[in-house]
Amino acid sequence: MSMEPQGKNLVGLSEAGAGDKSFKSYNPTLGAEIEPEFVGASSEEVDRAMQLAGEAFPVFRRKSGEERAVFLEKIADEIEAIGDPLLERCDAETGLGIPRLTGERGRTCGQLRLFASLAREGSWVDARIDTAIPDREPLPKPDARLMLMPLGPVVVFGASNFPLAFSAAGGDTASALAAGCPVVVKAHRSHAGTAELVGRAIQAAVKACGMPEGTFSMIHGDGRDVGTALVQHPITKAVGFTGSLKGGRALFDLAAARPEPIPVYAEMGSLNPVFILPGALEERGEAFAQGLCGSVTLGVGQFCTNPGLVLGLEGDSMDKFIGAAESAFGEAAPATMLNPGIRDAYEAGLETFDKTDGVALVAKSSTAVDAVATQAGAHVWTTDIDAFASNPELSEEVFGPTTLVVKCKAKNELIRAANQLEGHLTATIHGTEKDLEEHLDLVEILERKVGRIIFNGFPTGVEVCHSMHHGGPYPATSDGRSTSVGTAAIFRFTRLVCFQDFPQVGLPDELRDDNPCGIWRIVNGEQTNGAV
Amino acid sequence: MSMEPQGKNLVGLSEAGAGDKSFKSYNPTLGAEIEPEFVGASSEEVDRAMQLAGEAFPVFRRKSGEERAVFLEKIADEIEAIGDPLLERCDAETGLGIPRLTGERGRTCGQLRLFASLAREGSWVDARIDTAIPDREPLPKPDARLMLMPLGPVVVFGASNFPLAFSAAGGDTASALAAGCPVVVKAHRSHAGTAELVGRAIQAAVKACGMPEGTFSMIHGDGRDVGTALVQHPITKAVGFTGSLKGGRALFDLAAARPEPIPVYAEMGSLNPVFILPGALEERGEAFAQGLCGSVTLGVGQFCTNPGLVLGLEGDSMDKFIGAAESAFGEAAPATMLNPGIRDAYEAGLETFDKTDGVALVAKSSTAVDAVATQAGAHVWTTDIDAFASNPELSEEVFGPTTLVVKCKAKNELIRAANQLEGHLTATIHGTEKDLEEHLDLVEILERKVGRIIFNGFPTGVEVCHSMHHGGPYPATSDGRSTSVGTAAIFRFTRLVCFQDFPQVGLPDELRDDNPCGIWRIVNGEQTNGAV
Repeated sequence: MSMEPQGKNLVGLSEAGAGDKSFKSYNPTLGAEIEPEFVGASSEEVDRAMQLAGEAFPVFRRKSGEERAVFLEKIADEIEAIGDPLLERCDAETGLGIPRLTGERGRTCGQLRLFASLAREGSWVDARIDTAIPDREPLPKPDARLMLMPLGPVVVFGASNFPLAFSAAGGDTASALAAGCPVVVKAHRSHAGTAELVGRAIQAAVKACGMPEGTFSMIHGDGRDVGTALVQHPITKAVGFTGSLKGGRALFDLAAARPEPIPVYAEMGSLNPVFILPGALEERGEAFAQGLCGSVTLGVGQFCTNPGLVLGLEGDSMDKFIGAAESAFGEAAPATMLNPGIRDAYEAGLETFDKTDGVALVAKSSTAVDAVATQAGAHVWTTDIDAFASNPELSEEVFGPTTLVVKCKAKNELIRAANQLEGHLTATIHGTEKDLEEHLDLVEILERKVGRIIFNGFPTGVEVCHSMHHGGPYPATSDGRSTSVGTAAIFRFTRLVCFQDFPQVGLPDELRDDNPCGIWRIVNGEQTNGAV
Repeated sequence: MSMEPQGKNLVGLSEAGAGDKSFKSYNPTLGAEIEPEFVGASSEEVDRAMQLAGEAFPVFRRKSGEERAVFLEKIADEIEAIGDPLLERCDAETGLGIPRLTGERGRTCGQLRLFASLAREGSWVDARIDTAIPDREPLPKPDARLMLMPLGPVVVFGASNFPLAFSAAGGDTASALAAGCPVVVKAHRSHAGTAELVGRAIQAAVKACGMPEGTFSMIHGDGRDVGTALVQHPITKAVGFTGSLKGGRALFDLAAARPEPIPVYAEMGSLNPVFILPGALEERGEAFAQGLCGSVTLGVGQFCTNPGLVLGLEGDSMDKFIGAAESAFGEAAPATMLNPGIRDAYEAGLETFDKTDGVALVAKSSTAVDAVATQAGAHVWTTDIDAFASNPELSEEVFGPTTLVVKCKAKNELIRAANQLEGHLTATIHGTEKDLEEHLDLVEILERKVGRIIFNGFPTGVEVCHSMHHGGPYPATSDGRSTSVGTAAIFRFTRLVCFQDFPQVGLPDELRDDNPCGIWRIVNGEQTNGAV
């Protein structure tokens, strides 16, 4: 396998690139385009990728959990086998730096292996068996057996801010493949080379594991045509996306307007409010300022879980915290953002804050920004609850290393602010145990507003495990019922199928009496991993 | 509680009816309107119902599983306590007959009690706990705890064809209340009195169990304004509907176009194809004809699972089956449909069949139809695979007691027909075990096309149990991922919430270390009903 991107689309096991648009990746650190040239897919190639996915589906969905597990593990192995050239290409395309990208590669391969273990273990299908009662009155009870099955071909859009963990072999790809759905990736153009290298790793795993050709394809495209064609294609059965509210809503609207509507799982950003309660503010306001600054500036603020809003009570403790934040943010070094478009949008967001009455800048990075290196500085602002409530633009995410501290006069203002929140991915509470006991009403409100509530931590850094949830009510995501991180993400790409009065020979292994998969099932209402 | 409907809307614990439109129910058997007059809700009353639901939600969602179970059981008790007046009113409004309605009441109360047992047992929340690993390298692992929580206020549209089991206290109401979501029902105008009586039973249960006032409301409305207002109301978080493709799609489109899109679970009908395989056709074609006629005419063909399409191989066995079907359908007595609109639509559908080249009428009810009594006769038709494939109108549901037999020349034509199917609620295979073994490819195709596959039975009659699925890919439903029957229906009205590093005092009972609910959870990847 070549360690350099060739500028190609990967359609099944072939290379492609007959589109009439081409582009190059941009190195934000150097401020210059880099080789090679990427050619977008033609509409025939897009159709071919979906046709192949449609042909692969009946075969791929019948692969056992063990076979899918081996395949996912092989993808992880192939990604690791690329070695440093992957990290170097990725750093060149994103400016995220080798240490962060080494971590992100670990997370990417870790989540592929976690989904492998999920597929291998197999209980995720939520199998249920109700056995027949032929002599029940007034009517016999039939034998009914239920399980989750894969939905069909899935289109995954690569995310600019996670070139590995939410892109070609990212979370949605891992969970869709684990469920038994072929995947067609629309690569993000700002890391097209990274996507191609990872795509070739998946292609190699498809070959090595004897999976059907259309199990995976990866499409480049400059502009919206390719994305639209993929979402509108009749073979597509679901869409995964991470990006802006505007972009995610556009895909959602396209999918809802199809003759056959399909689900769109779009994660669209979030302010991730942090509530600092009185006891904690008094006890450790300065340490909180340090932690907050670290979380806001992590990855140059380019995380969906970036804490962009802090709420606490005014007073001496607040003032001390603000003083500490002033130092911390002032000392934070400017850093390279993913691309000039994101940097420009960040600066436009700062300008909005700057112009809003009642909002004051507390501090910004004191070192000058290197514009050629696409740098941005950290910012921290303050306002009061009235200005916050009356300026809706302050509730919109500014993607980058900035946060706004809202000073409230009393607990009832904190509660009012919580009640007025839209949907967010996360909310965080900093407090003593006493604070928490005195603010259980706040927890109750946040349970209805966000996907994950963190106590005495920071929302950045999303653990990949069975119990994680990365999602939240609209507008944080287009479908607040589901998660993009953690093993529950597999449910995105599944639907129920029931078999009634079927002989054993016609049943999937997961539903047979002898439970050959050894999975946990609900049999006549009881959890068991035994046979019927 | 009055045993006669008063023509009122039930908004929380009050009666209402300030709308400017009124209507009466129609007795299809008598062919005449019946008292009382129902007044639709005004837009203020619709808003009031949703506001009350919004206020009830934070309180109702915190009720324990036991409290919700007692409430659901109380609703069932109150419905039974109405006694014969409920069945009589319902029969007057639907013409379905006392025996069927007695059965449907049993099913309605049975599913309320099944959801009560689900809420009481509690494991449905899919609780997961991953405990912290503070010394993990390179980063500590946080404690993460995940569970399903209720989505928010749900709007349920009553279904004309199940005045009890899919209406005011029907499946969606039961699963939404079990999940912790308040419900606002839009009563179906063709059984408004039935809805009011059942609504009053729920109102009584709300009072008796001390649930918040807005836990339940029931709204009448003539025309679309009320339904549109309910779906567009910002407090509404999900919609359940059973009815026509046109009606369901309209609600789906409204919901998708909201500033905050919400899920619509619309069940929109289905042809429910039945495949009769060669061995079974030879062995028991005549018995199959009897069974088919019974299923097609059950409830005057007004089931979502009515088998409207039969596919088998031509030949002597087919001819014998057709002969038997001719007798059976000819002998089937005409019967009263739900209302004149449904009867007229049925007749229009028959006319389409009659005019389609290549479609022949095999038989219809030989007894004359009583038009005043809104009667319709049973019909059975034949065609061949080419005429079926080239006339898309033959793949559209005709709601009523009619079915179309498609004669195929060989197995490959059966497979072709299966591959061309759109989404359906069910498919049925009649065959010997040998037939099934020789048609596992057919099963594989059907797994991708329908929600439930029945072997040697008929699709009408949907068992309410843990393992049931009533749903299917579009256009059978607007969301093929979910079911409207069986305990898995509770997932419709839920979303995930994760608690990270929370002290025990801030956690819901379901996620506490000591597992006070005694539920099954996934703790560090292992199923257990023990403590952490």
